Amino acid sequence: MTRTLLVIGGDAAGMSAASQARRLLGPDELAITVVERGDTTSYAACGIPYWVAGLIAERDDLIARRAEVFRDKQAIDVRLHHEATAIDTDARTVTVRDLDAGTDLTLSYDDLLIATGAQQVRPPVDGLDTPGVFGVQTLGDGQRILDAMRTRAPRRAVVVGGGYIGLEMAEAMQLQGIDVTLIDMAPQPMTTLEPELGDRIADAMRAMGIDLRLATPLTGIEAGDDGWVRAVVTPEGTIGADLVVLGTGVRPRSALAEAAGIPVGPSGGIVTDDRQATPVPGVWAAGDCAETTHRVSGLPVSFALGTVANKQGRIAGLNLGGADGRFPGVLGTAVTKVHDLEIARTGLGVREAEAAGLRVVTSSITAGTRAHYYPDGTDMTVLLVVEEDTGRLLGGQIVGGPGAGKRIDTLAAALWNGMLVEDLVQMDLAYAPPFSPVWDPVLTAARRAAGSAG
Amino acid sequence: MTRTLLVIGGDAAGMSAASQARRLLGPDELAITVVERGDTTSYAACGIPYWVAGLIAERDDLIARRAEVFRDKQAIDVRLHHEATAIDTDARTVTVRDLDAGTDLTLSYDDLLIATGAQQVRPPVDGLDTPGVFGVQTLGDGQRILDAMRTRAPRRAVVVGGGYIGLEMAEAMQLQGIDVTLIDMAPQPMTTLEPELGDRIADAMRAMGIDLRLATPLTGIEAGDDGWVRAVVTPEGTIGADLVVLGTGVRPRSALAEAAGIPVGPSGGIVTDDRQATPVPGVWAAGDCAETTHRVSGLPVSFALGTVANKQGRIAGLNLGGADGRFPGVLGTAVTKVHDLEIARTGLGVREAEAAGLRVVTSSITAGTRAHYYPDGTDMTVLLVVEEDTGRLLGGQIVGGPGAGKRIDTLAAALWNGMLVEDLVQMDLAYAPPFSPVWDPVLTAARRAAGSAG
Repeated sequence: MTRTLLVIGGDAAGMSAASQARRLLGPDELAITVVERGDTTSYAACGIPYWVAGLIAERDDLIARRAEVFRDKQAIDVRLHHEATAIDTDARTVTVRDLDAGTDLTLSYDDLLIATGAQQVRPPVDGLDTPGVFGVQTLGDGQRILDAMRTRAPRRAVVVGGGYIGLEMAEAMQLQGIDVTLIDMAPQPMTTLEPELGDRIADAMRAMGIDLRLATPLTGIEAGDDGWVRAVVTPEGTIGADLVVLGTGVRPRSALAEAAGIPVGPSGGIVTDDRQATPVPGVWAAGDCAETTHRVSGLPVSFALGTVANKQGRIAGLNLGGADGRFPGVLGTAVTKVHDLEIARTGLGVREAEAAGLRVVTSSITAGTRAHYYPDGTDMTVLLVVEEDTGRLLGGQIVGGPGAGKRIDTLAAALWNGMLVEDLVQMDLAYAPPFSPVWDPVLTAARRAAGSAG
Repeated sequence: MTRTLLVIGGDAAGMSAASQARRLLGPDELAITVVERGDTTSYAACGIPYWVAGLIAERDDLIARRAEVFRDKQAIDVRLHHEATAIDTDARTVTVRDLDAGTDLTLSYDDLLIATGAQQVRPPVDGLDTPGVFGVQTLGDGQRILDAMRTRAPRRAVVVGGGYIGLEMAEAMQLQGIDVTLIDMAPQPMTTLEPELGDRIADAMRAMGIDLRLATPLTGIEAGDDGWVRAVVTPEGTIGADLVVLGTGVRPRSALAEAAGIPVGPSGGIVTDDRQATPVPGVWAAGDCAETTHRVSGLPVSFALGTVANKQGRIAGLNLGGADGRFPGVLGTAVTKVHDLEIARTGLGVREAEAAGLRVVTSSITAGTRAHYYPDGTDMTVLLVVEEDTGRLLGGQIVGGPGAGKRIDTLAAALWNGMLVEDLVQMDLAYAPPFSPVWDPVLTAARRAAGSAG
């Protein structure tokens, strides 16, 4: 008998799961339907800033695999412009609105995968719907920003929020010749990093010509006579803006699940076990909308990261296809850049570690990305968060020039394996003058942290 | 009572050990003498190709710390131009020749650290001492090559040997406008990598304009009427050369120790335990001259790597200073580049694994260094060597464009911790479009290796 898998959300997690399940079970065994309210599947939201920057020519370049391909090659019934509006977990049905036709339909399922992604956190101010104020969530958002840049030739832009998207959009608009002001309510950009590194990022951003205003919350939006945004309002005064971009973070889009009685955890994400199954029979969740476990703290967390969404989608797909996949949790490893400054982190920051009841020490070093005598090297700072009593690595953060950022993966691998910093010191990493000092900065940081520096 | 530490060899291992011991014990507790036959301490031999390439202006840039600094700041009695010629382990003395004075002296020790480094493997042909034929071992070698380039304006150079130094010297001389032919007796360059990757390197080198001749052993050297090298001889004919560079590998310089009855192991390196102590009381060894244990195979190995020399020197110094340091073995992680092609490896290759009695499978993937839509990305190939029955990672190899090489560190960290490839797939690595596809190539390779690719 053919079972039915219904997937809500056709981006990374949903389509990874559908594809993986299909590789295990043919259409006779498993019918797969995906409802997606947007107009495309599997697009790279992370690429939007680079599209806005003019580095990527075509919107379609950001689409990993189109709906037609899923339909034709994998017999996955992808329905675009279809939005799930209600789930009945007893009847095992989902109410879906056909956004083109304006009609509702009811789809039945044996298994339901919720992969609804994340939604923007909107600052609590009026005027966010003013024309010229944009989020950066969907390809549609990116297209609207590009259209505005084309039609209105903005001279000044304000980015609200100094996290990943905020920094990337600040760079993108600078590359388009726009004067960029970035405001953040926090006293530093990139609040997932320690203040020492935040200060380094702030200095570098100002040196790049970004007008960075910290401890400056958004309190309002002003529109001009034509209704288009004219300025943002802050306690320090108004800042003229022809374009405003919200980089104010995201949270799990879990309201649909919650309304159906599917448990949502303290992180705001849908609760699942390590097979991506929710506590409700036949209901699964994966990606930004789901809660997972932090491997270091053991606490429930939600990260809106494409890496996690793809991995969780694969695991859900393995299980939905009759195999056994287990998602082992996350470290929250992430990397970004603003112009030539690379910024990366993994594991727990000090506040997160303390919130998990751990006693921590930090240590940091600044060293060259290359041998000191090799041309075009730059400095990088490596900060390690270490459990005080045991010397166990809890987290790592890196800020530096080209070649610095992806070194976070070495720390992620060390964290993944629960290494002590004194063992990390000994690890056999690669060296050649164009790539590293003979003691890679990651090892020098571990050496400092292990108390045997110098 | 003041004890005496005598160190033979003033480069990475010897000076790291001396410095580390000094940090633990003052001059009243430990007198430290270092004898070094050359004219400098702690120089970066790995930097010589880049100096020859003209990328590094001054010879002195390659010296990490000068002898005077060790003398003045650390009360380490460094004697340059002093060569140890004999060790008497019963009397605990070393005969040392003062190369300037032409006299011998006898130095006593309580502890002796042998850090004599490596020596070039010379092909078994006549004529290697012909003027214009150079090794690449010491700063003196580098200076002689640069002098020859200045005084003789060579048009054609032949590099003998397609390993790390051979590739780096080929690039260096190309950058100086010289036509480069590289000959290797093996059917591929970089024989520490699998043939598949060797072929990729060979193709890239030829595309760079290097005249690469494989399966072509050196059988002789021809000199011109002025006595300067004129050509190298191979079974395929002679190849004109105004300059010849030997990149024919190195082996541990252990003859002095062996003559003194200090055990030398199957790798040719001096046998030590994990404290860097030899079986002979009071005698220690560290760096290229010492044998160590491969962490994956458990077999004795010697690697001439600055990373290992520095780490072993530190461990020896901890123990000589009264602390307890343990060297945990090596993976043989290494990286190099020829122009924009980065080449890296860690762990066991197929032959090494089979020699260790392991049954292996390999799998490889080629993927982008960046998101496919992000500008200026290049391809990289990742090859994994995996234990067939268990799925345990045994080794990894990477060849690719900028950003590819240092990813080997992630594999090194996975290897260090004995990971299975199926666990590696799940590891939480950093992603952003300028840095990586959403599945980092390292993870994609693991996924392929774990048999769940696609």
